Amino acid sequence: MKVLIIGGAGMIGRKLAQQLAKDGRLAGQPISKLTLYDVVPAAVPPGAAMGVSLATGDLPAAGEADRLLADQPHVIFHLAAIVSGEAEQDFDKGYLINMDGTRSLLEAVRKAGHKPRLVFASSIAAFGAPFPEAIGDEFFASPLTSYGTQKVIGELLVGDYSRKGFLDGISIRLPTICVRPGRPNKAASGFFSNIMREPLAGEEAVLPVSESVMHWHASPRTAVGFMLHAASLDLDRLGWRRALTMPGLAVTVGEQIAALRKVAGDQAVARIRRVPDPFLEDIVAGWPRTFAPKRALELGFRADASFEEILRVHIEDELGGHIARGGR
Amino acid sequence: MKVLIIGGAGMIGRKLAQQLAKDGRLAGQPISKLTLYDVVPAAVPPGAAMGVSLATGDLPAAGEADRLLADQPHVIFHLAAIVSGEAEQDFDKGYLINMDGTRSLLEAVRKAGHKPRLVFASSIAAFGAPFPEAIGDEFFASPLTSYGTQKVIGELLVGDYSRKGFLDGISIRLPTICVRPGRPNKAASGFFSNIMREPLAGEEAVLPVSESVMHWHASPRTAVGFMLHAASLDLDRLGWRRALTMPGLAVTVGEQIAALRKVAGDQAVARIRRVPDPFLEDIVAGWPRTFAPKRALELGFRADASFEEILRVHIEDELGGHIARGGR
Repeated sequence: MKVLIIGGAGMIGRKLAQQLAKDGRLAGQPISKLTLYDVVPAAVPPGAAMGVSLATGDLPAAGEADRLLADQPHVIFHLAAIVSGEAEQDFDKGYLINMDGTRSLLEAVRKAGHKPRLVFASSIAAFGAPFPEAIGDEFFASPLTSYGTQKVIGELLVGDYSRKGFLDGISIRLPTICVRPGRPNKAASGFFSNIMREPLAGEEAVLPVSESVMHWHASPRTAVGFMLHAASLDLDRLGWRRALTMPGLAVTVGEQIAALRKVAGDQAVARIRRVPDPFLEDIVAGWPRTFAPKRALELGFRADASFEEILRVHIEDELGGHIARGGR
Repeated sequence: MKVLIIGGAGMIGRKLAQQLAKDGRLAGQPISKLTLYDVVPAAVPPGAAMGVSLATGDLPAAGEADRLLADQPHVIFHLAAIVSGEAEQDFDKGYLINMDGTRSLLEAVRKAGHKPRLVFASSIAAFGAPFPEAIGDEFFASPLTSYGTQKVIGELLVGDYSRKGFLDGISIRLPTICVRPGRPNKAASGFFSNIMREPLAGEEAVLPVSESVMHWHASPRTAVGFMLHAASLDLDRLGWRRALTMPGLAVTVGEQIAALRKVAGDQAVARIRRVPDPFLEDIVAGWPRTFAPKRALELGFRADASFEEILRVHIEDELGGHIARGGR
């Protein structure tokens, strides 16, 4: 089986590639070739027994998606996107990559004619306030960002191309990924990860919102699990409703901090500095808090068990099992 | 005020142009110029006191939408579309006109920079079965046709372009138009109109489904009323949720026939020939039956009062007030 990851140099793409390299198989089939495509070169995952091909390019460019489809990959993970903040700042770039790029890919798949499995990474940015207490599977998509709009359009296209028999597609709406590894970034949602990751590494982090803020989280490891499950599932069970909100963990910032205290002690918690930002608090008030993702649960998608588990996954996967003990 | 109708030669476009010509004003402003654009030449509406410009062309073609925006129309009605059946048969043509054409138009509006009102004609084809008993305003779009998919994508784009301040847009999801004037067409929904229009004109018509089939209807006159109201409304009241399901009349085929009997007697009803079509009955089972369009009602959109009224509107507007009395 040949597998293509579009966005293979990104955070989830990299972890997904590592897991596929480790497993050597997907959906019960041995993987013969793994292609990692991105705008920058991806890394060959350590210990990969299959052939790994690295490719770089610009997905919406003419002929580009056709080139990626030339070897008729059986499973395609489409994770490439301009992120929320950038798509909001650069309207044209967001539509070019997130909408035209996705459509180019789907058209190339249609032209290739072999009807592969396609897993499209969508987002809970599909939804915009006001919300019901818990957002159900039939609540309407009402995005409040260009990024969210582009993701919903991608979902609709994946649904229609599936219904027409051009591919066998599924869109999975990922929760906010927490704890996101790497350096703090400028995403408005970055603080959810910053206030966990930095203290665990012995650094200070800023908490700009109140502890009562609730949000919907999944660890990177769980997100990779969603991808693998989405690639393996019999999609006939979904009918033509091919977009699914993934299960997550609804926790408040206060609950995050309590979990940090349990896992890393008071000295880690003491590294969180409270600097309220009313502007950010307003933005966050428009975000989903919690969902009732009944269909995804019925189909076997599983959230992290607790926020402590999310922290332990981070310590294991990113910190080699060690918490920074130095400190204040 | 300058008004542009894209799709000005179509059934609703023609009636909308006639109404605007008759009124001479829109949203409280006198109309100085009315441009009717379509793939085929539209007709100058009788008695138009304003300047009427007829233009033909291919909306998604390069530079075409820019040309339409050159005189900076204040209100744009976008009614042009490849219809459901054709978009399902010709996948590329449907996406080219319904998706790329709409996006071209929105891009041209953005480039023109004057932030006009834009009224986009969407459809209840945005929804696909299974449904709740009555579809509410927050029920998700789950189209089961390429046409429906393209309409929802249009709604999302109109929403995002509005939120970004490029235009002041609204998408209105029209009910099935009944009684549709003209000759019987091949649309699967054609029978709802055929079994009324043909008997009123002294012709036979075929009823392919059972009398218990319920559907959501609006007369052409009411649809034009929706357009005018959508062009006049303060859209700030909608927030960024700019797609609205229009009120309609939920009636069964049996209720349609009872209304026909009241308005035109037994001899008209006798012209309906029952030829059950299980294939069509299956298709129709996937269509919406009834809605609870709370937001649109609150905003002052009004459905037809009864199916008898729908028939009287048809007799007045299409038959010059005369029902065919000739018998079998």
